[in-house]
Amino acid sequence: MSSQYIIPETMKAAVVDSSDTPLEIRNVPVPRPESLKPGECLVKLDCTGVCHTDLHAAKGDWPVPAKTPLIGGHEGVGIVVAIGAHTQDSPVKLGDRVGIKWLADSCLDCEQCRKGLEQSCPKGKYSGFNIDGTFSQYVLSYVRHVTPIPENFDSAEAASILCAGVTVYRAIKYSNANIGDWICLPGAGGGLGHLAVQYAVAMGLRVLAVDTGVQKKELVKKLGAEAWVDFKETKDLVADIKAVTGGQGPHVAVVTAATSTAYEQAIDYLRPGGTLMVVGLPARASLNADIFWTVTKSINIIGSYVGNRQDAREALDIAARGKVKCFFEYKPLSALKETYEGLEKGAVVGRIVLDMKN
Amino acid sequence: MSSQYIIPETMKAAVVDSSDTPLEIRNVPVPRPESLKPGECLVKLDCTGVCHTDLHAAKGDWPVPAKTPLIGGHEGVGIVVAIGAHTQDSPVKLGDRVGIKWLADSCLDCEQCRKGLEQSCPKGKYSGFNIDGTFSQYVLSYVRHVTPIPENFDSAEAASILCAGVTVYRAIKYSNANIGDWICLPGAGGGLGHLAVQYAVAMGLRVLAVDTGVQKKELVKKLGAEAWVDFKETKDLVADIKAVTGGQGPHVAVVTAATSTAYEQAIDYLRPGGTLMVVGLPARASLNADIFWTVTKSINIIGSYVGNRQDAREALDIAARGKVKCFFEYKPLSALKETYEGLEKGAVVGRIVLDMKN
Amino acid sequence: MSSQYIIPETMKAAVVDSSDTPLEIRNVPVPRPESLKPGECLVKLDCTGVCHTDLHAAKGDWPVPAKTPLIGGHEGVGIVVAIGAHTQDSPVKLGDRVGIKWLADSCLDCEQCRKGLEQSCPKGKYSGFNIDGTFSQYVLSYVRHVTPIPENFDSAEAASILCAGVTVYRAIKYSNANIGDWICLPGAGGGLGHLAVQYAVAMGLRVLAVDTGVQKKELVKKLGAEAWVDFKETKDLVADIKAVTGGQGPHVAVVTAATSTAYEQAIDYLRPGGTLMVVGLPARASLNADIFWTVTKSINIIGSYVGNRQDAREALDIAARGKVKCFFEYKPLSALKETYEGLEKGAVVGRIVLDMKN
Amino acid sequence: MSSQYIIPETMKAAVVDSSDTPLEIRNVPVPRPESLKPGECLVKLDCTGVCHTDLHAAKGDWPVPAKTPLIGGHEGVGIVVAIGAHTQDSPVKLGDRVGIKWLADSCLDCEQCRKGLEQSCPKGKYSGFNIDGTFSQYVLSYVRHVTPIPENFDSAEAASILCAGVTVYRAIKYSNANIGDWICLPGAGGGLGHLAVQYAVAMGLRVLAVDTGVQKKELVKKLGAEAWVDFKETKDLVADIKAVTGGQGPHVAVVTAATSTAYEQAIDYLRPGGTLMVVGLPARASLNADIFWTVTKSINIIGSYVGNRQDAREALDIAARGKVKCFFEYKPLSALKETYEGLEKGAVVGRIVLDMKN
Repeated sequence: MSSQYIIPETMKAAVVDSSDTPLEIRNVPVPRPESLKPGECLVKLDCTGVCHTDLHAAKGDWPVPAKTPLIGGHEGVGIVVAIGAHTQDSPVKLGDRVGIKWLADSCLDCEQCRKGLEQSCPKGKYSGFNIDGTFSQYVLSYVRHVTPIPENFDSAEAASILCAGVTVYRAIKYSNANIGDWICLPGAGGGLGHLAVQYAVAMGLRVLAVDTGVQKKELVKKLGAEAWVDFKETKDLVADIKAVTGGQGPHVAVVTAATSTAYEQAIDYLRPGGTLMVVGLPARASLNADIFWTVTKSINIIGSYVGNRQDAREALDIAARGKVKCFFEYKPLSALKETYEGLEKGAVVGRIVLDMKN
Repeated sequence: MSSQYIIPETMKAAVVDSSDTPLEIRNVPVPRPESLKPGECLVKLDCTGVCHTDLHAAKGDWPVPAKTPLIGGHEGVGIVVAIGAHTQDSPVKLGDRVGIKWLADSCLDCEQCRKGLEQSCPKGKYSGFNIDGTFSQYVLSYVRHVTPIPENFDSAEAASILCAGVTVYRAIKYSNANIGDWICLPGAGGGLGHLAVQYAVAMGLRVLAVDTGVQKKELVKKLGAEAWVDFKETKDLVADIKAVTGGQGPHVAVVTAATSTAYEQAIDYLRPGGTLMVVGLPARASLNADIFWTVTKSINIIGSYVGNRQDAREALDIAARGKVKCFFEYKPLSALKETYEGLEKGAVVGRIVLDMKN
Repeated sequence: MSSQYIIPETMKAAVVDSSDTPLEIRNVPVPRPESLKPGECLVKLDCTGVCHTDLHAAKGDWPVPAKTPLIGGHEGVGIVVAIGAHTQDSPVKLGDRVGIKWLADSCLDCEQCRKGLEQSCPKGKYSGFNIDGTFSQYVLSYVRHVTPIPENFDSAEAASILCAGVTVYRAIKYSNANIGDWICLPGAGGGLGHLAVQYAVAMGLRVLAVDTGVQKKELVKKLGAEAWVDFKETKDLVADIKAVTGGQGPHVAVVTAATSTAYEQAIDYLRPGGTLMVVGLPARASLNADIFWTVTKSINIIGSYVGNRQDAREALDIAARGKVKCFFEYKPLSALKETYEGLEKGAVVGRIVLDMKN
Repeated sequence: MSSQYIIPETMKAAVVDSSDTPLEIRNVPVPRPESLKPGECLVKLDCTGVCHTDLHAAKGDWPVPAKTPLIGGHEGVGIVVAIGAHTQDSPVKLGDRVGIKWLADSCLDCEQCRKGLEQSCPKGKYSGFNIDGTFSQYVLSYVRHVTPIPENFDSAEAASILCAGVTVYRAIKYSNANIGDWICLPGAGGGLGHLAVQYAVAMGLRVLAVDTGVQKKELVKKLGAEAWVDFKETKDLVADIKAVTGGQGPHVAVVTAATSTAYEQAIDYLRPGGTLMVVGLPARASLNADIFWTVTKSINIIGSYVGNRQDAREALDIAARGKVKCFFEYKPLSALKETYEGLEKGAVVGRIVLDMKN
């Protein structure tokens, strides 16, 4: 399919050459429309969110290494400017505004894909990990997996929903929490947490926010959290959480933190029959669950990995209808390096979205 | 309700006076029929199984201590010989043959009970743990929780189903394994394991048995296991398990072992989307789940605690119809001490059932 | 348990002597506290709601006849003033404020009860149907099934939640609707419907209200309905419903109507994979589902019968927290006859709650 | 992708020119490999099953008409002899043996496909209905939806599994029947029924077969049915079915019959909480469910439409491992007309598979 768009030869991109070199913003070639294979598309990016995951990928923190050189980024929003020749029945067309998420492509044929667990497809392509991502002005992606952005939903608003939003949304959805159930959200004031508060409230859950500081307390209360425990001020976190929830503890905890402590506490404070949703992709870390309590309290510990195509559409749709609003700062691509430094120090409040248009 | 049965003043019982004294078989008073409260019943035991759990309870291995002095035992089968006066709508009547399981009573009113998770009822009474159990000739129990034994099903056959059988049955049932799915059973040749093999086969699952030794291999093959991995002979357990199951790994693992290693391996060999059922009540032990793999493989880790009243009936019914047969030795109560010693050394093959009639 | 309350010898009650005689308000004996069996309790009623079901019961409209003479009523709120002697572990105590729902008692032991489907217990006792109900100043009920009323929740507010509220709440809950799904509510402006709108909104569903008239339109819009179709004004109900929901039709329909037409339409307008919740207890009526479309659209048709103990507590809890508010008129018991006449003509707006204190 | 296979210009095919003309076996052009679009493939058929559905399609029995002229057939097994140029990541390659099922293709992108309900995809292509099917020596199909046939599984054995087998397998799977549950199978001795008996037995269900005649009784007993009711000999079908299942009735009924009676009976004999699976695609017929009983018995009525890609693989895998064996007669294509006549009279025993090689 030939494109009416003029595609430049080069583009700005943030490249990491190896896990021990810093990222560098430089000009790189734009993938050529005429070289796209069937099913591939080229997206001209408006903006992209920055995720802690990008930092882990860049630094080689995980048991599986990222490709190098690597262009990171997996919360991109842009316009489809080319589609590979011979693509059949493309769900998107030239000019469509779409999102690029962590899961850039999956085979849609293996057992996991057939069962709707596309994100754990053994052939999965992950943006900014084993293929290049959205820290560049154009990105090659896949017509079957890009996510249409609802009309009237601002691109910068949509960006962080594509990973942070989908991730917490799916975790809450698959926790089988019922309206009126208590959900505990450690890190409720953070990038993922403040979105989780809003998705949970929109489903009728009772949110117990755990975080620290007056500013975060005010934020989560404004977003609808019903109860608050400051983990720095409490003398007994588990007891306080149980007290808030009528003595039995919450039905669900969505733990986005990377520390073992947060997981061990959750098994302690969850009520019998409760569910611990494990999300996020920390560097080497282990979940130490006491077997005696896991069994006798009938606890479910569920690994929840971003989301599939349906989860992504639902998370966006809910946000586009105004139920969830991301707090973010809009910055130029050149701010990526300092953003990484901020993330490393834990100094980033809310999410960062980068303008990719210039 | 007055009883036509002659109830003696004393009975033989195996008593543990404290966690650091050995059990002693001695005469103790029989609970008096006229002192039973509404809802209580007195059961004259035919026989009782011995469970590793009994040893843990006796030794005070868990974070919650057992009562002392303690009469252990929670796999009893016997006859209802008295029912407390003023009991309304008793589901059992005098002369009924019933089973006493780990969960002797629950409130049937709290959130857990209302949701069918009776075994995690905060007011739960556990046979041979916080109330006296079945290592005695008579036992006080509860009409709403004793389990009717199917006609024509031998008491000694039924005994081990009441805990070992129910526990593995529920774990398999709640794993959501589908017919044709691969299920990995570490310890498949053991007391719980050999029952798990049979329940799994009866549901149409493909059983991959993991254990060691020719004798156990032959046993599990005879019971229907399709594949076998000897954990002492393999050079790479995870690789071998994956190979047997077509490369992807099993859909489900039911881990009854107490060691951290067995759990860590399961997270490695399970296929994406797989489920790890955590059962048994080991002494202090922790499940160390790698968070990266738990998340990216979308693994479910489910604490499964014995079973509720419905699970118990189903497990018995399946066994009574000949689908599951327990391998056990029948011994006098006086053999309990040596059985404990054998369990401690790991030297007990199959289950031990004690004759309580003499 | 002796009661500190003074229980009069007689009370006012609305009695139906047979299915073809009108109800009569007269004095009848109060059940004596000293005659209560274990597990029974006596409740002094504050108020009671009136349900269309009461009229069906009184008139003998169903395949199973009600007892006669009958005191109807199954939405009662009052105070426990006596508990049968020898009652063990009662979940309620003297002075507790409790609700009497349609399901007054179940055995808590049969397969249905063990599985949490208490309302379909073969031994179920139904208030105002096979036992006397709440159209009297005192009512005999059962400690295990009366529902505690949340503190600070007005009795008159609570009354209609006990049947109308629970019924629609459970139907929505068991429809497996997901946040953001479209739910179609025919009769949305009626007694059950206006509660359904609010429960659905509280769960994050998108409500398509179907009813007629400006007044009902304004009501449901105020309660959060996103779309409205007037069934008298539309030329093509099915087409209009599909159009509102983006062409595919709603995910769920909760049909409370008694007419075959409403059910047939639902199968037409539901999207593939959609779910039709069947509630209410009309006089002889049949659901005529076209088999071709039921199969090829993969439609689920689910009979939902009031709710179990857990559903009742959840429905009350949600309402008590202000998420759902019943529109009702408060009248004396003497208004029951005219209320029945109004229900028969379809002239009752919202719910009627009767003051039982005088 | 160029093909090493020699594809003739014409082939034998059974063509129906309109719903009121008889089928005719004649030579028609073979789809040309070079005209295949990306994602399409050409399959040289070994054999094909004949399904009652084919007759309905040919006769225009349904609310949606089939294409004309029509080549019917949707239980084909053959070899992939060509794949459309520019097909990306084809799950099958030249020479693979694959099955053609009713659902020939779906978009894999719409809400239904994203949720695994591919068979109800609004863009679905159905073999022998809105595209040409397998009553021809070659058939155009789709690489993403053809089903790999397990090695060592005979093509003629596999054919009927692709529709009859998948249909009953999915119905049983989605009924949520638990091991040990009673399943009632009206028409158990028929083409779909005898496969249903075997799938149910393989899952550990207790099969109550309903059909008529000594021959069918012996067949279903041999296949593992535990109980038998002859619908011609019984004086009270509902009472007999309840009696067999301990008084309560079966947990599940899979009704493949086209008559309203079979459905109405099922609602009568199912136990409270039971599930009625609605399968098959009869000519205009309606399911008349009594609303009173559907509600008060908490009955689930589930439309189950063939199966998705995963269901098809599972159904084949189970059969290939010897758990399910289809009874069929192997005939030449020329026998199709007489087969249709036999189906119309109800005179076909088991399934018919046509040899397409000559």
